[in-house]
Amino acid sequence: MGVAATSSQTTKTDGAPDFLSAVAALRALTARDLEAVNAEILARMQSPVDMIPEMAGHLINAGGKRIRPMLTLAAARLIGQDADYDGRHHVALAAAVELIHGATLLHDDVVDASILRRGAKTANIIWGNKESVLVGDFIFSRAFELMVAAKDLRVLQVLSRASSVIAEGEVLQLATQKNIAATVDMYLAVVEAKTAALFAAAAQAGALIAGAGAAGETALREYGRNLGVAYQLVDDALDYAGAEGALGKSVGDDFREGKMTLPVVYAVDRAAPEEKPFWRRVIAEGRVEAEDFDRARELMQRDNAIADTIALARRYAKAAIDNLSEVPRNEYSAALADLVESSVSRAF
Amino acid sequence: MGVAATSSQTTKTDGAPDFLSAVAALRALTARDLEAVNAEILARMQSPVDMIPEMAGHLINAGGKRIRPMLTLAAARLIGQDADYDGRHHVALAAAVELIHGATLLHDDVVDASILRRGAKTANIIWGNKESVLVGDFIFSRAFELMVAAKDLRVLQVLSRASSVIAEGEVLQLATQKNIAATVDMYLAVVEAKTAALFAAAAQAGALIAGAGAAGETALREYGRNLGVAYQLVDDALDYAGAEGALGKSVGDDFREGKMTLPVVYAVDRAAPEEKPFWRRVIAEGRVEAEDFDRARELMQRDNAIADTIALARRYAKAAIDNLSEVPRNEYSAALADLVESSVSRAF
Repeated sequence: MGVAATSSQTTKTDGAPDFLSAVAALRALTARDLEAVNAEILARMQSPVDMIPEMAGHLINAGGKRIRPMLTLAAARLIGQDADYDGRHHVALAAAVELIHGATLLHDDVVDASILRRGAKTANIIWGNKESVLVGDFIFSRAFELMVAAKDLRVLQVLSRASSVIAEGEVLQLATQKNIAATVDMYLAVVEAKTAALFAAAAQAGALIAGAGAAGETALREYGRNLGVAYQLVDDALDYAGAEGALGKSVGDDFREGKMTLPVVYAVDRAAPEEKPFWRRVIAEGRVEAEDFDRARELMQRDNAIADTIALARRYAKAAIDNLSEVPRNEYSAALADLVESSVSRAF
Repeated sequence: MGVAATSSQTTKTDGAPDFLSAVAALRALTARDLEAVNAEILARMQSPVDMIPEMAGHLINAGGKRIRPMLTLAAARLIGQDADYDGRHHVALAAAVELIHGATLLHDDVVDASILRRGAKTANIIWGNKESVLVGDFIFSRAFELMVAAKDLRVLQVLSRASSVIAEGEVLQLATQKNIAATVDMYLAVVEAKTAALFAAAAQAGALIAGAGAAGETALREYGRNLGVAYQLVDDALDYAGAEGALGKSVGDDFREGKMTLPVVYAVDRAAPEEKPFWRRVIAEGRVEAEDFDRARELMQRDNAIADTIALARRYAKAAIDNLSEVPRNEYSAALADLVESSVSRAF
């Protein structure tokens, strides 16, 4: 019985819905729109340059959960029921959000030299780094064209701003990598930028395009932001506590890359003086030996580094639930509540 | 006497103005706006993540000629004199155009593993490939934020479309690299996309924001497109015929990377059967030995590969001059005419 099993018991006794079931419920609720999103993405990835639809197809069909575009769709429908919205632009915006995410993944995998994503070989391994950089740029540009097609300047401001913040967060993450002195605040700044900004913008854009008032727009933006932080915290915990198959990526990736995620920040902070050289060697110097990952996990378990990461995720999830009290109660807000409640328990 | 000297005599006897003088004249004419563009760029590259302003500063202050943003500024002023335009948005758009170009350069240098640009070390050499990829993404995102701030949906369509076309052109270039069977049409498709599209969009965006009618908008877009193709053709000729110092980058870069630029397309097409294996070895197989670059240049000179590349550039330049007959005659259109007339003779 490892850390994973313990956490699983803790969360499952909460009575929270299972994460994958909550995702499936949201997918069923937005099924028709999501089909249109997929068609839009497919159409936008067409090109006489064969490599482009090939790589885009690999990336986009590789079993992603589509959480970000579903946030846009659900937010638009949630608000739209009251605001009599019956437009189609939320589909283009949801597609743009997924493409921004996809472009980011392509570049991330180059930067991290990743080999696996969602259980499949990464594009940089199949096609190469150069190809991933340039096709990522293409996908990102197409995302922008799609947003522009929705013809709403407020939405364009929100999504273009989010893109800058994401990129800034990626650079910040690279700058803090291997920095053993990184703090909780530095970690949270990275997470807010590289993950939560797009979750927030995705939900906000859906609300805006459907005609939300200021209160609804803010509530859905903050819901997205809090969900995004919770989601990333759990992701970072799973890199140490997850089971290889359940995660669909290689457990221990963050460790091998020397990423200063929250479990490491906590573990370093709580380590005894004689344990500090271990963390310095594996994180700061990047000299990782065969048994080091298991040792890291043991130290994290002893010092509650994983449990406290999950506890913090739970606080953000709670805040996201509170945000939903400001929007109409309907099947969409119920599905968004289930999503965030279950997100902390996923794969544990 | 090498190829360069011969070409120099050919072009200088045309009586065309010197290219750097024409650039300087355009810079003087747009000086006040260009200062505002530089300030806007500087402001948009601020970030608490130190690496961002550092890399952006290196890239942007590295002696670029600012031709693309000057096209936006000059087009806006050219049209604006008749259309009573006195807005400020052309400055933001010109800054966005330069940032799109800058982001492309950062990624290009990663993809090509370039060492020198404009006589200085490239960012990928100083900071690293990962850093260049991510900071390029940031600069690109900031360019979009700037465009959105100009609040003109037509301009946004033009510039977001251009970004997609550029990225598609970069992928196409990568796909044709080392392809000894590449044709003139394939080469021109790459040039139209990776270079001419941004020149065209830069001029078109300036015209649009200043209130040009359909005729003026089309004329300036086509002027930019034709100038862009001419400019790239000359650039590609210079990689074989230029003097190292004059070009500010290493002569022979394209050759070593196996790029199928027009001089190579012509040379391969005109090579005797017994010379084909030479081109296959150096371009398709990438096995380049010490004397190969000189041999390539000799074959190109014998078969007029450089001269015919320049002759084609001259045809595009002529078309660009013709485009200017559709716009008002003033100091701005005169400066744009000088720019394109001189562009073919630069550095020869």
